[in-house]
Amino acid sequence: MWEDVGEENKLSEPHNTKEFRAEAHRMVDWIADYLEGGARDFPVLSRSKPGDLSRALPTEMPAEAENPKQIWADFESMVLPAVTHWNHPGFMAYFGITGSGPGILGEMLSAALNVNGMLWRTCPAATELELVVLNWLRKGLELPDDFFGFLCDTASISSLLALAAARENADIEVRERGLAGRDDLPGLRVYASDQAHSSIAKACLTLGFGLDGFRAIPHDDDYRMDVAALRQAISEDRRAGFRPLAVIATVGTTSTTSVDPVPEIAKVCAEEYLWLHVDAAYAGSAALCPEQRWCLDGCELADSFVFNPHKWLFVPIDASALYTRHPEIFKRAFSLVPEYLTTPMTGEVVDLMDYGVQLGRRFRALKVWWVLRSYGLSGLQMHLRRHIELAQAFSDWVDEQPHLERAAPAPFSVVCFRAKPPGMEHGEALDGFNMRLMEEINTSGDVYLSHTRLDDGIALRVAIGNIGTDEADLERCRILILKGLQCLSNP
Amino acid sequence: MWEDVGEENKLSEPHNTKEFRAEAHRMVDWIADYLEGGARDFPVLSRSKPGDLSRALPTEMPAEAENPKQIWADFESMVLPAVTHWNHPGFMAYFGITGSGPGILGEMLSAALNVNGMLWRTCPAATELELVVLNWLRKGLELPDDFFGFLCDTASISSLLALAAARENADIEVRERGLAGRDDLPGLRVYASDQAHSSIAKACLTLGFGLDGFRAIPHDDDYRMDVAALRQAISEDRRAGFRPLAVIATVGTTSTTSVDPVPEIAKVCAEEYLWLHVDAAYAGSAALCPEQRWCLDGCELADSFVFNPHKWLFVPIDASALYTRHPEIFKRAFSLVPEYLTTPMTGEVVDLMDYGVQLGRRFRALKVWWVLRSYGLSGLQMHLRRHIELAQAFSDWVDEQPHLERAAPAPFSVVCFRAKPPGMEHGEALDGFNMRLMEEINTSGDVYLSHTRLDDGIALRVAIGNIGTDEADLERCRILILKGLQCLSNP
Repeated sequence: MWEDVGEENKLSEPHNTKEFRAEAHRMVDWIADYLEGGARDFPVLSRSKPGDLSRALPTEMPAEAENPKQIWADFESMVLPAVTHWNHPGFMAYFGITGSGPGILGEMLSAALNVNGMLWRTCPAATELELVVLNWLRKGLELPDDFFGFLCDTASISSLLALAAARENADIEVRERGLAGRDDLPGLRVYASDQAHSSIAKACLTLGFGLDGFRAIPHDDDYRMDVAALRQAISEDRRAGFRPLAVIATVGTTSTTSVDPVPEIAKVCAEEYLWLHVDAAYAGSAALCPEQRWCLDGCELADSFVFNPHKWLFVPIDASALYTRHPEIFKRAFSLVPEYLTTPMTGEVVDLMDYGVQLGRRFRALKVWWVLRSYGLSGLQMHLRRHIELAQAFSDWVDEQPHLERAAPAPFSVVCFRAKPPGMEHGEALDGFNMRLMEEINTSGDVYLSHTRLDDGIALRVAIGNIGTDEADLERCRILILKGLQCLSNP
Repeated sequence: MWEDVGEENKLSEPHNTKEFRAEAHRMVDWIADYLEGGARDFPVLSRSKPGDLSRALPTEMPAEAENPKQIWADFESMVLPAVTHWNHPGFMAYFGITGSGPGILGEMLSAALNVNGMLWRTCPAATELELVVLNWLRKGLELPDDFFGFLCDTASISSLLALAAARENADIEVRERGLAGRDDLPGLRVYASDQAHSSIAKACLTLGFGLDGFRAIPHDDDYRMDVAALRQAISEDRRAGFRPLAVIATVGTTSTTSVDPVPEIAKVCAEEYLWLHVDAAYAGSAALCPEQRWCLDGCELADSFVFNPHKWLFVPIDASALYTRHPEIFKRAFSLVPEYLTTPMTGEVVDLMDYGVQLGRRFRALKVWWVLRSYGLSGLQMHLRRHIELAQAFSDWVDEQPHLERAAPAPFSVVCFRAKPPGMEHGEALDGFNMRLMEEINTSGDVYLSHTRLDDGIALRVAIGNIGTDEADLERCRILILKGLQCLSNP
């Protein structure tokens, strides 16, 4: 598809600008084709084998500038076959996500401006637009006025910052004295359901609580945190001399999208003086629809709250929205201002570097702004509802199939199910069968599913979140499941 | 500049694709114009006042989808005036950086594919291309074969991961038991020069070492770490019962770009069994030029090493390259693999989520690959050398001026200097004079400088790193300095 630019590669053009214009126009057409359905020309799950791409590429960087046609040709022939297409409408693994047209426009502009919004002054627009769109989203989610919101890259970082703030809030002089070598400090404990995301335990590792500092609370029959067990764990730990710090409630767990009973958990946190962090990374977006707002009940009582616009709000990765009613505690935990980062307005404006680990901050607000304005609240709601309806229809279909069973409630756009061929009980054989079924389906290239382990064993997940996913994709998925089932049952 | 697309905003088009094509083409032309010099139409440092942009924007997200023309119009009239233009050739504050044409192409494609390279299988290309380009860069920098490299978002995170690995390496069962509530654990200590970046102390806060766990070592006359003082500090700390963990050597400090004596520091680390982390975030890129390779002498002995392609290698923010000869220790520190993140090849392939905090990983390798191929090693060297030459010429000019003094050696592309009008000694008055001079210069809109505090007081910094910066920008800068000096001396 690449034609000659008619220009030599000019190193004297610092940005390779003449080339840039021509290449970027061609790339835009390729991207538009891809979004319009071209993604379907590729298998969702890459068929590349480990090492295929590495072996195809040279072992050293080129000595001289290369022809843009050649770069693109290599991208198409070598890189693309090794891409798993998260922006393909058949992507239903993990959580379906979307690099939407408006989001891509925001990223283009952000790369071109290439600002670092570490301080208000180093790009007032980056800080102010970020605070404004986070306020828009806060209002859309009906969260309290005193929630201060900013963007992180991932929920892993958002939750890490939240737990660091909880630690700072514990009045143990952790900022000055740290945790090690102190005889005045008991073991610290953080609680979350055993269905919480692994990033919570990882945050505990990072912050120096250790795996012992993380206590997983069992779930009830619907994969929601068992609040009585939480109470008991806290009380046991206090008796054993631990210092409970924080509870993480999950709204939309990764395995089943179950919703922890946040109001009851908030009550425990209030009574026990514990920090409440809510991880609504996936499901938070749903609450933009009034009929789904129930899932955030109790979140108004949280000390911190995260949801990811890059998960189910059509914003390209990465964009994680972190809210807190205690921004000053985040600052206490993280603010360090050497002379070279002071400005005439230090202390008078919000310098977002003060609230977290990373000094470098991309202009992420631009893509969020572009998406929110391009779809409007009603457009976002339409797509969220469409995804939920597709999932509910799929869930009903599973319930009707004699050899399939639903593995958990499906409150949003993710359905957990498993094949259960006649005569095969829950156990290793059934797990193996389902894993083989999943691989069979994924080999098709039309859809890509992932799995998890639930109380009754392995379950497959259909996770709808790509804006292009439609009824025909779900139909293809259903046919592949039935075909796989037949094929594996009668080998 | 925006014309009508001739299409209604179609929500039934999931990606707003028809609009996307038209808008993206227009945006490409805007970006190309911006790169070709259009950036110069804007003041480098935004003249926006705190709250200007926030007040201009609505307080809620739009209910309905908005016209793309209107979004662009608002971007131009409201957002742009609040942008500080890091991609402007007159940007010489902090470290000059570049969103180059090829880098922008990489970001466009990355936003469109929107992959999450958390696991090898979730996008083999993201993992393999990352490992390949990091190898290209490793060879370019003449670092050892056994350095394993991957990309982080920022050096703040790279250094955090490195210090977490140092902590894991200390055989104190930190992964399981954490740091708190233990009577078998002394206070931990991390060492860096007092010129090290604030992200090092911030990593110490995050990891639970506290500010007490960070010991700043004094610098010599050239702002390099005083190795005798390091030895003494370690020995004092051991006697006082502390457990030294790691030393951070800086190659290209933020204030003056001084280079710590890494070979001597490595010797201390070897004798004392300490982890050596090298922060070459800015200056590492220079070592792609053989005549600058001296700055990495001794880095072959490091346990971990970071440099940022998004700083001085023309890659848009964010891209930080972290190398280590002990990838297995990073895995021990961070790997947590719940069932839902297992794949058939778990353990047989590199899953990059295992090496750090963040599960979500953008396809950053694409932009690095595009930049390295588009410029080639010789093109990168040409621009690096050009920047160094511009800085050396500026430094010589400072030395010739009767009322300016150079405040530190200038080994790379950053020059620290101060005005010293007749009769004004070092001290508060001189500091105030220089801060006023800087604000005067920055008000021009032609260049943007930042400051730091050195032994003799405040110094201004001219930091050349934008690929578009040329002799004419430096000449403008010189004239502005002289004009400001005259104006402030004779008010």
